Amino acid sequence: MKLLRHGPDGQEKPGLLDQDGQIRDLSGVIPDLTPEQLGAEALARLAALDPAALPLVPAQTRLGAPVAGTRKVLAIGLNYADHAAETGAVAPKEPMLFSKAVTSICGPNDVTELPPSSTRLDWEVELGFVIGTRAKAIAAGTGLAHIAGYVLANDYSEREWQKDRAGQFVKGKSHDSFCPLGPWLVTRDEIADPQDLSMHLSVNGETRQSGSTATMIHKVVFLVEYLSQFVTLEPGDVILTGTPPGVGAGMKPPQFLRAGDVVELGIEGLGRQRHEVVAL
Amino acid sequence: MKLLRHGPDGQEKPGLLDQDGQIRDLSGVIPDLTPEQLGAEALARLAALDPAALPLVPAQTRLGAPVAGTRKVLAIGLNYADHAAETGAVAPKEPMLFSKAVTSICGPNDVTELPPSSTRLDWEVELGFVIGTRAKAIAAGTGLAHIAGYVLANDYSEREWQKDRAGQFVKGKSHDSFCPLGPWLVTRDEIADPQDLSMHLSVNGETRQSGSTATMIHKVVFLVEYLSQFVTLEPGDVILTGTPPGVGAGMKPPQFLRAGDVVELGIEGLGRQRHEVVAL
Repeated sequence: MKLLRHGPDGQEKPGLLDQDGQIRDLSGVIPDLTPEQLGAEALARLAALDPAALPLVPAQTRLGAPVAGTRKVLAIGLNYADHAAETGAVAPKEPMLFSKAVTSICGPNDVTELPPSSTRLDWEVELGFVIGTRAKAIAAGTGLAHIAGYVLANDYSEREWQKDRAGQFVKGKSHDSFCPLGPWLVTRDEIADPQDLSMHLSVNGETRQSGSTATMIHKVVFLVEYLSQFVTLEPGDVILTGTPPGVGAGMKPPQFLRAGDVVELGIEGLGRQRHEVVAL
Repeated sequence: MKLLRHGPDGQEKPGLLDQDGQIRDLSGVIPDLTPEQLGAEALARLAALDPAALPLVPAQTRLGAPVAGTRKVLAIGLNYADHAAETGAVAPKEPMLFSKAVTSICGPNDVTELPPSSTRLDWEVELGFVIGTRAKAIAAGTGLAHIAGYVLANDYSEREWQKDRAGQFVKGKSHDSFCPLGPWLVTRDEIADPQDLSMHLSVNGETRQSGSTATMIHKVVFLVEYLSQFVTLEPGDVILTGTPPGVGAGMKPPQFLRAGDVVELGIEGLGRQRHEVVAL
């Protein structure tokens, strides 16, 4: 299933994409795609519906992030060996964890805010996953069972705030609009191998990132297990898994986003996003 | 007002402390102390109630964290000059921001979990504040108006996870039970000067931390304004403001918590906490 949320910002309703790529409304079935709807039984109930019997939603309707009520956005840094190299860092032996504020979440095609004091706004196409069932200190090899599905994400990062404004990545990762998610939450059953998905990102039509989750250092199944030793993962939590090479900070000379730039990105099977950068 | 939440973990009801120090139940008035109840108008409605007309709750009832539905826990590192010195770090010129997972929040007297792989579990008494109204890029000097109230907190920290397990503090700050809050959310009107509150912490009856918010480097009013430039603050968000000297990592030799230890802490006007450390 490709689950989604459609409608104006803050008033989204749940929906799904049918086999013809049309948006179908789920608001007569569930109130929203909240954490309670992400467990195996709840997802099975949605999968049993006949999409053709659900109301059609106009194709041009805005999409929001495909999950509501997320209480945690965790992210893994330097998780592609070649991206680590371009930033001048050594890839860490174990996952490097940071966080993004949940208020940075926005829809897949919303504008990207360029704050007044931003000078080094950068892009990062990433595979995200959404937790479906609670995970605390889970056993090795059992990680995938806790995942409801996968989601395309852009881990927007203000590099000066992240690195040169008194430590800790969260400061540069958390502004409103810095975490577009979607268009869809693609349930786990539809992704045969999360470690074999091509991914790409362009700025103003020029390719900047082109890679595959095959070169991810710490794999999805391990990340769930690893993180659950340090922090309890709950339904609706979003985990971003790192970005392949091609970020602006790694270019020679470095390039960052300016007002009017258009960022487009996609991951195989997870859809595409498009953002216009708008000065605040 | 001293607002609180009483009852078993996960089933807390809202309440307040009356002038005689008795717990009064608010569940007939509001469903819970959620972010929607933290704005000025909502707080004024609660302040207008006659506590004596509210049901009494037995004194020994467990207390939960005094706010429900928190979506963000932000924290400021090295925000007391003498604490920065004891850690061997230079106090940063601007606030050093990190985050804790919301799942680390627990009640003021709940047990503190000592995870199996923990070797350096440390304490940090901190003044916390809770946001009452949204703050995004607010003007200088206007920070206090966005605060609903103040809360006592212990920013428990696993130092190895925080510093020696591949970067970023959040990994060592986010385990379940690492963010006890309460006993009360003390509304802003009751704290004449948040920068003149004595604070203390003891382990097994021996004083470890003894200080005052007077020596805080970046003050509360500035922190709201500063943070709002990087991340939008929402009602219910909790911000911890740093710890005075006396953490275990700064002792010579360093001392960390073991199963069976009892940690007690308090801040003037904000009440006290007591935790027993329990091995998982």
